[in-house]
Amino acid sequence: MGRVIVDMSPSIDGYVAGEGVSVASPFGDAGLRLHRWLGFEGATPAAADDEAVARTFGGAGAVVLGRRMFDVGIGTWGDDGAFGLPCFVVTNRPEPELVRGPTTFTFVTDGPAEAMRRARAAAGDKDVVVPGGADLVRQCLAAGFVDVIHLHVVPVILGRGVPLFGGGTPRYEAETTDVVASPHATHLTVAVKR
Amino acid sequence: MGRVIVDMSPSIDGYVAGEGVSVASPFGDAGLRLHRWLGFEGATPAAADDEAVARTFGGAGAVVLGRRMFDVGIGTWGDDGAFGLPCFVVTNRPEPELVRGPTTFTFVTDGPAEAMRRARAAAGDKDVVVPGGADLVRQCLAAGFVDVIHLHVVPVILGRGVPLFGGGTPRYEAETTDVVASPHATHLTVAVKR
Repeated sequence: MGRVIVDMSPSIDGYVAGEGVSVASPFGDAGLRLHRWLGFEGATPAAADDEAVARTFGGAGAVVLGRRMFDVGIGTWGDDGAFGLPCFVVTNRPEPELVRGPTTFTFVTDGPAEAMRRARAAAGDKDVVVPGGADLVRQCLAAGFVDVIHLHVVPVILGRGVPLFGGGTPRYEAETTDVVASPHATHLTVAVKR
Repeated sequence: MGRVIVDMSPSIDGYVAGEGVSVASPFGDAGLRLHRWLGFEGATPAAADDEAVARTFGGAGAVVLGRRMFDVGIGTWGDDGAFGLPCFVVTNRPEPELVRGPTTFTFVTDGPAEAMRRARAAAGDKDVVVPGGADLVRQCLAAGFVDVIHLHVVPVILGRGVPLFGGGTPRYEAETTDVVASPHATHLTVAVKR
């Protein structure tokens, strides 16, 4: 069975978005600063950055994401839906499946565990990626779903915003199994011990 | 003039202490988990860990620390006061200087700027280290005092506790100038752009 991989880009001070997250501003007043390492804002990713993307998505078979992330993100993900995978959106509001080229968004109203079950079934032997938001990541950590965290630490101090993992998870020991660095971000691979 | 160096050991999820910080438990329910890389709890520091200590304290001429950190720490710092340097404690309560072997603790009641001024004077061309607590670090960042942050990211998820920098600092661009990793911690050197 594949792994469940959480992928987050925090600032030095542990925020994954700024304040004022909205459809018009998916990362609030942080803008795309935390995602420049992916090539936004005219940045040129280094080899380590490309490698970091491949580590998360290279073996991915499905995605589980939060409703709010979907709502603020879908307008920016283009005609192909960005992920190119079956995506399961955890939500309280049922909605018909949305198809964007190779990407499908299925709305799951029975909670994160059911979304994870369906994502695992869709992924088969491949990995399930949880790209956010922070609250869903917190719930997945609390439920013991997470095997690996890919943390892309970006050299900016935001001072305020949405805290990494949202706070309130159980305590887990972990192991940093790999670190690669570029001028844009320090990429840590962290194996969660459960 | 020397640099002002902040030195903090956060968990993966950005906490520098657990909940319930007290004299009996200086890091709250996190215990010494975040400082195992220094050799606590029977751990053996790796070369990268020793190097990380040397980076912060190798050129240090003085220390500025918060009152709460002093109160919860002094009982554990032994007969030599641990730092071996002139230390300036930011506090509201005046108190006579305390000498512990090569370490002096001077209580400064005129705020962080005055403590920093006195520490810089004591340090001469050497660096001033700010080891905490989070609230003093936040104040030093807000005042624009900080040149370098040494971040020792420890592979544990605490889930709750004292957030790195306390939150509410201004936004700063930064540059990660060096990364060294051991099984105990990933050591980032971050230059703050002001």
